[in-house]
Amino acid sequence: MTLRKRLRSDLAWSSAHRVVVRGHDLADLIGKVSLGDFAFLELKGRLPTPPESVVFNAIAITLVEHGLTPSAIASRMTLLGAPESMQGAVAAGLLGLGSRFGGPVEDAARMLQEALAEDPRDLAEAARRVVALHQEAKRPVPGLGHPVHRAVDPRVPRLFEVASENGLAGRHVDLMVAVGAEAARAYGRPLPVNATGAIGALAGELGLPWQVCRGLAVMARAIGLVAHVQEELSEPLAAEIWARVEAEASEHLRRD
Amino acid sequence: MTLRKRLRSDLAWSSAHRVVVRGHDLADLIGKVSLGDFAFLELKGRLPTPPESVVFNAIAITLVEHGLTPSAIASRMTLLGAPESMQGAVAAGLLGLGSRFGGPVEDAARMLQEALAEDPRDLAEAARRVVALHQEAKRPVPGLGHPVHRAVDPRVPRLFEVASENGLAGRHVDLMVAVGAEAARAYGRPLPVNATGAIGALAGELGLPWQVCRGLAVMARAIGLVAHVQEELSEPLAAEIWARVEAEASEHLRRD
Amino acid sequence: MTLRKRLRSDLAWSSAHRVVVRGHDLADLIGKVSLGDFAFLELKGRLPTPPESVVFNAIAITLVEHGLTPSAIASRMTLLGAPESMQGAVAAGLLGLGSRFGGPVEDAARMLQEALAEDPRDLAEAARRVVALHQEAKRPVPGLGHPVHRAVDPRVPRLFEVASENGLAGRHVDLMVAVGAEAARAYGRPLPVNATGAIGALAGELGLPWQVCRGLAVMARAIGLVAHVQEELSEPLAAEIWARVEAEASEHLRRD
Amino acid sequence: MTLRKRLRSDLAWSSAHRVVVRGHDLADLIGKVSLGDFAFLELKGRLPTPPESVVFNAIAITLVEHGLTPSAIASRMTLLGAPESMQGAVAAGLLGLGSRFGGPVEDAARMLQEALAEDPRDLAEAARRVVALHQEAKRPVPGLGHPVHRAVDPRVPRLFEVASENGLAGRHVDLMVAVGAEAARAYGRPLPVNATGAIGALAGELGLPWQVCRGLAVMARAIGLVAHVQEELSEPLAAEIWARVEAEASEHLRRD
Repeated sequence: MTLRKRLRSDLAWSSAHRVVVRGHDLADLIGKVSLGDFAFLELKGRLPTPPESVVFNAIAITLVEHGLTPSAIASRMTLLGAPESMQGAVAAGLLGLGSRFGGPVEDAARMLQEALAEDPRDLAEAARRVVALHQEAKRPVPGLGHPVHRAVDPRVPRLFEVASENGLAGRHVDLMVAVGAEAARAYGRPLPVNATGAIGALAGELGLPWQVCRGLAVMARAIGLVAHVQEELSEPLAAEIWARVEAEASEHLRRD
Repeated sequence: MTLRKRLRSDLAWSSAHRVVVRGHDLADLIGKVSLGDFAFLELKGRLPTPPESVVFNAIAITLVEHGLTPSAIASRMTLLGAPESMQGAVAAGLLGLGSRFGGPVEDAARMLQEALAEDPRDLAEAARRVVALHQEAKRPVPGLGHPVHRAVDPRVPRLFEVASENGLAGRHVDLMVAVGAEAARAYGRPLPVNATGAIGALAGELGLPWQVCRGLAVMARAIGLVAHVQEELSEPLAAEIWARVEAEASEHLRRD
Repeated sequence: MTLRKRLRSDLAWSSAHRVVVRGHDLADLIGKVSLGDFAFLELKGRLPTPPESVVFNAIAITLVEHGLTPSAIASRMTLLGAPESMQGAVAAGLLGLGSRFGGPVEDAARMLQEALAEDPRDLAEAARRVVALHQEAKRPVPGLGHPVHRAVDPRVPRLFEVASENGLAGRHVDLMVAVGAEAARAYGRPLPVNATGAIGALAGELGLPWQVCRGLAVMARAIGLVAHVQEELSEPLAAEIWARVEAEASEHLRRD
Repeated sequence: MTLRKRLRSDLAWSSAHRVVVRGHDLADLIGKVSLGDFAFLELKGRLPTPPESVVFNAIAITLVEHGLTPSAIASRMTLLGAPESMQGAVAAGLLGLGSRFGGPVEDAARMLQEALAEDPRDLAEAARRVVALHQEAKRPVPGLGHPVHRAVDPRVPRLFEVASENGLAGRHVDLMVAVGAEAARAYGRPLPVNATGAIGALAGELGLPWQVCRGLAVMARAIGLVAHVQEELSEPLAAEIWARVEAEASEHLRRD
């Protein structure tokens, strides 16, 4: 048998008298560290500085809640069949955070991190390359445009302002803005940076690898979906949605 | 067709120029409200007071991370088959937060809230009733005992201290402590309050209905599972665990 | 350290030259055993007799497809966000097979198996006890009544006929029919046996323990959900459903 | 508001007196159609011919059960935390059927279907193109090689034999075999067709589009995972696996 790697996780361990997370006694953190800062600790292995804390919490809360999205509808439909299983309803909603929802944060962060990994001296030039590559591949540029917030995504100026106030509006932000301007020029229409683009940029400023950025959406949306499940338990919508779908889908049966 | 209820959620709505969550302009909260406080807003419909914030964040961080639990192992095994699907791996892990993990927070909160709903004048008497009911039904009393932290669960004194410092150690905490003392007497062995008991009590102090308390574990553990997925992406354990299981399970094949 | 049980599964093993499932060389079964019979082998550890095969396949196909159910809607909403993840969409749909959908098969099977475990000499008397217990607890009797198929559930006479033709309409079927008659008398309105009641009875005839009966719905519905995902990929409905929900939910915004 | 598409599914509908699946009265199918044939009906919109039935059931049963795979381990770990949720345990296991498990059937089917869509006259030449493209991209050729079945995958000769006996070993099979031979030549080592390659080829012969082929694994494995959950309920392994992982992971704590 081949030599094996030893099983080991650096996230946490516990003994009879201690619970240790990322090297900190959990009892020392309770009452002092907020949930957002604890999430930063989990992902980065250290607590955030105050500016990092502000920016990390800013991007996290932006991802929590978007109303009756497909994810929220899936959670509510699932609860209708399994009202005893809060975890199943939340899990069903999270499963929709794939390439179309959730994935875009990852895509924007990846675009920026890969472009900056080449250490470009001229960000405008880097933006041109990025946009040209997407145009050639006929793929939309991540982080730009929004079906509802056509002129300005109201979250974006505030996210960039918070980053700037905290000294964390660096090259990822600059490149994202440059990509937006270049795309508007190349496609001949306004393509404002959207919330996923801003979050992808700020994640880069915080040194979060793009591979984990979809996880920011997953952890934040889990909170929102718990709230949807709570609302569904007292003000159920799922049976109403089902009734509308069934009614419309069976209309043709009487006519066919 | 019968009259229907109108579809409506009070959680969020958005227009071209605004995203509104629980009545607040999201842009006004970004940079000011932490993830934990935003979760409180989602669940309660209002931002927490400073003491509520400390206590809510305290219970939330306590639930994030417990090392290589069955949930974390399930997430990692799932990532092995679907490394492109962060959301699937986290969802798989959350699905284990049922009656045995996650459920106990709900059970403890329910026990306390139902006992206090009868507005008992004497908490020691209420504790006796609660313990007696569980003894008769031969069911363990929720929130007590721990296989590893046999003498004292190191999280509990700190959680109760934080609640006390913030004026939120009320009747739920008192009843939980009384239940622990009564159970120790009734069963003739120490049954210290564990973390789920303390969290169930503090959730009651914050006015969170027991029906949503499993959701506290779900939202917190989603953060921890994202961290496990991140670690698994760079330091994979799943294939190692699988190899050990297969090796041991196939040993008898050579002998049978 | 305490002595441990050895890891071992009796379901399957493989070596360089063989794949063995439930003691059969898989290569010997390929081309000879149908999927339904293989499912029986998995659950029971032996292949079905011809009559068992007919009845098992009959109950399995009855559970595959019910149109645009909450499960199917959840699968489709999930695919909208993660079109690259067939497995995530199917999993989301399956998560709704809890106590309200899927669970009823288990409930009916359990009711019958527990009543028959007492080996009653008089099934009419056993039916009276079962119905009385549910009436007292103010819980509906499992396996009876249907919101659409009010007079007769069209699947039930055929399921019972198939069982009878194959010599598998025994005491579970008799008791289910007796429970239906007794409930109609006790509640003063027709309560015909529904498909879950018939399936629960036939599962008992096949010696399937009630604990696994929800699994019959899970395995069958997985097939149906794959078909819904396939249809959604070519004729998408999820975005349409989402648009209707959003449109109705935001109507009040203009009026409030 | 823009004109919308009407909601409509061609899979099933029901009325007070009928349940209709894919145009067939369900009551007419019960007792006559097996689960595998019903799955074919769901996916293709018609019942299979006898040869199609044999081949479709052959590939389906091949995908049901592979022992203690990562999926089965994830299901069992999930059941440990949520023993009341059969559907959650099965869903957790299915979530691992991504690009590494389950996906390979899709990859093999896609490779063959895309190569044959160009209607090549010379299959050996088509095989050379396919292998060369994968070599250039440094990606493994789908459907070839197996870590355990190094010389011959014992399922493959039998699958091809069944296809041949039923007149369904056409160009997809021929191309898969040619790709295997060409890859062995190009890489200088034996690369026998594995089960996913054979199944991908036979799915093509049955006219199943590659986009649904991962679904074949999902529906089949749902059956296997129900069997694992059943076994876990009576012969639990999850706590044993967890204990081994924890024990090994905490060894260093005493030494560090």
